[in-house]
Amino acid sequence: MPDRVTFAAGAQKELAPGVPVRLDRVRTPQYGRHLEAFVPGQVFAHPRGFTFQPAAMLDFARVFMQCNPLYLNAQYAKAHGFPGFPASPQMVFNVVLSLGVQNDSEKAIANLGYYGAQFLRPVFAGDTLRAMTRVMDRHERGSGKPGIVRIRTLGVNQRDEVVLQYERKIMVAPDLGPAAAPAAAGPEEARAAFPWVDEGSVDLGDLRLHAIDRSLTGRDTYFEDFEAGDIIAHANGRTITEEHLALTYKVGNTHPLHFDRVYSKGLSGAMSGEPIVFGGLVFAWLEGLASRDATENAVWEIGFTEGYHTQPAVAGDTVAAVSRVLGAEAVAGVAGGGLGVVTFQLVGVKGISAKAAVETYGADLFVKENDKKDRGKEKIPAKIFEIERRLLVKRRPRRG
Amino acid sequence: MPDRVTFAAGAQKELAPGVPVRLDRVRTPQYGRHLEAFVPGQVFAHPRGFTFQPAAMLDFARVFMQCNPLYLNAQYAKAHGFPGFPASPQMVFNVVLSLGVQNDSEKAIANLGYYGAQFLRPVFAGDTLRAMTRVMDRHERGSGKPGIVRIRTLGVNQRDEVVLQYERKIMVAPDLGPAAAPAAAGPEEARAAFPWVDEGSVDLGDLRLHAIDRSLTGRDTYFEDFEAGDIIAHANGRTITEEHLALTYKVGNTHPLHFDRVYSKGLSGAMSGEPIVFGGLVFAWLEGLASRDATENAVWEIGFTEGYHTQPAVAGDTVAAVSRVLGAEAVAGVAGGGLGVVTFQLVGVKGISAKAAVETYGADLFVKENDKKDRGKEKIPAKIFEIERRLLVKRRPRRG
Amino acid sequence: MPDRVTFAAGAQKELAPGVPVRLDRVRTPQYGRHLEAFVPGQVFAHPRGFTFQPAAMLDFARVFMQCNPLYLNAQYAKAHGFPGFPASPQMVFNVVLSLGVQNDSEKAIANLGYYGAQFLRPVFAGDTLRAMTRVMDRHERGSGKPGIVRIRTLGVNQRDEVVLQYERKIMVAPDLGPAAAPAAAGPEEARAAFPWVDEGSVDLGDLRLHAIDRSLTGRDTYFEDFEAGDIIAHANGRTITEEHLALTYKVGNTHPLHFDRVYSKGLSGAMSGEPIVFGGLVFAWLEGLASRDATENAVWEIGFTEGYHTQPAVAGDTVAAVSRVLGAEAVAGVAGGGLGVVTFQLVGVKGISAKAAVETYGADLFVKENDKKDRGKEKIPAKIFEIERRLLVKRRPRRG
Repeated sequence: MPDRVTFAAGAQKELAPGVPVRLDRVRTPQYGRHLEAFVPGQVFAHPRGFTFQPAAMLDFARVFMQCNPLYLNAQYAKAHGFPGFPASPQMVFNVVLSLGVQNDSEKAIANLGYYGAQFLRPVFAGDTLRAMTRVMDRHERGSGKPGIVRIRTLGVNQRDEVVLQYERKIMVAPDLGPAAAPAAAGPEEARAAFPWVDEGSVDLGDLRLHAIDRSLTGRDTYFEDFEAGDIIAHANGRTITEEHLALTYKVGNTHPLHFDRVYSKGLSGAMSGEPIVFGGLVFAWLEGLASRDATENAVWEIGFTEGYHTQPAVAGDTVAAVSRVLGAEAVAGVAGGGLGVVTFQLVGVKGISAKAAVETYGADLFVKENDKKDRGKEKIPAKIFEIERRLLVKRRPRRG
Repeated sequence: MPDRVTFAAGAQKELAPGVPVRLDRVRTPQYGRHLEAFVPGQVFAHPRGFTFQPAAMLDFARVFMQCNPLYLNAQYAKAHGFPGFPASPQMVFNVVLSLGVQNDSEKAIANLGYYGAQFLRPVFAGDTLRAMTRVMDRHERGSGKPGIVRIRTLGVNQRDEVVLQYERKIMVAPDLGPAAAPAAAGPEEARAAFPWVDEGSVDLGDLRLHAIDRSLTGRDTYFEDFEAGDIIAHANGRTITEEHLALTYKVGNTHPLHFDRVYSKGLSGAMSGEPIVFGGLVFAWLEGLASRDATENAVWEIGFTEGYHTQPAVAGDTVAAVSRVLGAEAVAGVAGGGLGVVTFQLVGVKGISAKAAVETYGADLFVKENDKKDRGKEKIPAKIFEIERRLLVKRRPRRG
Repeated sequence: MPDRVTFAAGAQKELAPGVPVRLDRVRTPQYGRHLEAFVPGQVFAHPRGFTFQPAAMLDFARVFMQCNPLYLNAQYAKAHGFPGFPASPQMVFNVVLSLGVQNDSEKAIANLGYYGAQFLRPVFAGDTLRAMTRVMDRHERGSGKPGIVRIRTLGVNQRDEVVLQYERKIMVAPDLGPAAAPAAAGPEEARAAFPWVDEGSVDLGDLRLHAIDRSLTGRDTYFEDFEAGDIIAHANGRTITEEHLALTYKVGNTHPLHFDRVYSKGLSGAMSGEPIVFGGLVFAWLEGLASRDATENAVWEIGFTEGYHTQPAVAGDTVAAVSRVLGAEAVAGVAGGGLGVVTFQLVGVKGISAKAAVETYGADLFVKENDKKDRGKEKIPAKIFEIERRLLVKRRPRRG
């Protein structure tokens, strides 16, 4: 039952000089969790939520150089049968990942990898997402050492439909200090309700894949243009500027490592330095750089896995992208056979062009950095990211 | 009576080489006012106005790390009974303050303080604000010295309802040069119409304070969690980048000190240097940094007073915030007793974390810089801002 | 006929280690064209398109300091009879120009000039533009030397109405390497359909030029305030920051010279250096800096010609603007005689204030840089841009 809220505050009087300063009453709320605070089975509901507005969706797509007109052009999206242009999956991932930072990783040392991400439903203008995380397991490695926590996170819209779910491993330090601030960061629900979708299925609604204006995309990025083994060195790089601090805020990430130089320079030893670019943004820029040659004619990003940030990036770094086709399979029985699934390995480098990276490092560029030790290979300092991603791509339209 | 405006311009011919250059016809329009041009009683109507679009409102809230979901999440705002999410009061203040710069302070030397600000009505998407200022008094201090002008500014929406009003003191230099450009900056109305609200009352419409998704905000930021004397050192800082130049433009501020390095480096003596961050933006960042621990569960910012920018900030500075609770009073007879008024002293520092600032400066951090001389205390160079602000905060919901 | 697209992808398996790396299958798609690939008569349909959202339109207007409330204030625009606020012509130009980069100029060495631009229809929120280019002629200058290509580009909205058309000359290098990537950038249509408007006519719909709130604009920027010969040195400058990299992306420009430092530093000789600010953005900033004194009371930008970027700008440069009135002619028979056409020469400088530029360079500031050699004059290194632009400006309203 609503109340009419009118409130006459009266003139505001100055109070500060008359209120004694109580240095015994200082509190310093902390966010994120130390290792011990991750209990398998726990479910955290993440704070705030995020409403998607069309201008912000287009803005994200453009700042990250998305070339698929599905995310840039309302006419094109509607011609396909979407009610409007969807948010780019990169934006959805960045937002859901960021919603979870306060509970999951604001105290994490390192993001160890993304696994099994699935984009299940498009996000349209006006949708509001919220997110939640379940702790799957916690692996401690002995006294005082950081441990590894495996979590699952999902984002739901205002109709409680899951739009994205993924798994993540993070490296978290144990709580070495006196029991200062308890895990008060955000509410937690011990209830088991965590609607992870076990047999994930993308639902894009009713789509039309014909009668599309083909002049808006390239001719060489249809399903038939990708064969397992193909390697595409994407022409342009992107110099990341200090814009990344504000962009971190714009997607809602609260980790000071990305926007607080007093914090980042205060870290110990080798970790001390400039604010690190939030990995979600790096992934988005690399995906954008690849999009013109790889995903212009995709109708959906099904998901990704085995994603690793292998070196950090800071403002001033120029990133470039290479894509390697890992597989291409036609899809029967959907949309009249007009779609196929293409799997890409996306590799990001910094300080070097994509073409030069392939020429310089050759096959080693595509060996997982985590596997290099076992295979007696050196890590590549210029390599910053790798991931495998699957997309639903249109087949080349027949003439007429 | 509308006219159909169609106009055939014809091909555009090159004209410049044929028009003699008339160096005797150079004009250099000036904006802002010198001290003499502020006449008590005068009312200025400020130019341009500002239309609030939802994506820009969300964008402002996020760039300034607002954590109250009221400004981030349409579902949450509507659940409270708002027609949509309101613009953050910080954005409203920045816009109204900026609308007045061209008439009021584009020639000002210093912004001496904000007083008695009251946010009277929410601003929603689609609202257009315009602003006006009345000169209250002018205090001259003798030949050639800058004087102090006290002004009142208010912002009205398209229904002529006052959404914000406040008082400001600015330091303005006298006109030392020959009578160059008269006060031609913008129209002025000598009419007395200036709808300042004497008995200000916040009107938020019909609100529901129950049945809200509590998982979207923290558990420790309800009315009952704040007691006069509490001091909260907010965990994260924010490194301000050169983004502030574009942000100054985005809120409509025309003062070159903030975005014109030729101008800022051309100032005399100690004032010469890098563009200074517009104070309204600094206030917004500090308010955002405080929001996660202080205002997540607020339903409205009633207003603020005694606000001073005590040191400038430039790109590269990292700002941090400390809040001190000055008072907490339950509000009877409104919204079923579900609200209380909390008054905070918000202090901003640069180059140091909030926690370190409290540890280093202790009680002196909370003594007004303007009072320090009289009290035989040194000013704190790291302290950049202080203000007292009042908010309407929700009481903790009862279980069930 | 739409199909319901639901697709069960199944769990994503890691594939990369099992797919052999095929270094013989590397491709490096190229964009833009070498000189030989411009064939007179060819028509290119440009990719992607661009949907205009209101928040992005307001954001562009503000970031580029547009002072005409037509582009900032929905109430003001509607009072004139527009259905809403139109996109600033600067934004429309930047978007259409950028849409063409991939086909036209991503390999260009230099942008030699803009000619005969005409803004024929307003662009409103919700409009989607796409663009196309016809090659007019190609002038080769001998073996291995860059040649000059003249192209016409037009932007159409979703109703296939032309909103903007202009001509451009670009300097393009011949293809000196082995015939690597063919002109695969985007589709090309050999069909003659290119709806260039020969007798261009602005159609603004039904406008009301009376009953406008005059307090929102200045008093000195009506048609009667401009006389051929007047020179206006605009007070404020604008320091361009690294924001320009993201802004290049936001308008859709894919040329790495503007956002890829590995690319820009890899250029040979004197061209090597920092990313250059995209000229369209420079023009927009200069136009914005001029707007408060020149175009506040304009109702439309008819078009521009003879536009040249005479020196590059990089992040850190402070740009300033000077306007010279080349002509002012009343328009009979339209809108009850309430409009006039004013033609301005807009000159941009860097590193110096507008006033100082006029004092330092005098009449030479307004001599076209391209004409200086013939006239035995030195070029001005501080001069970055010049153009002639025509606007439809309101006459001063009669009292009462």
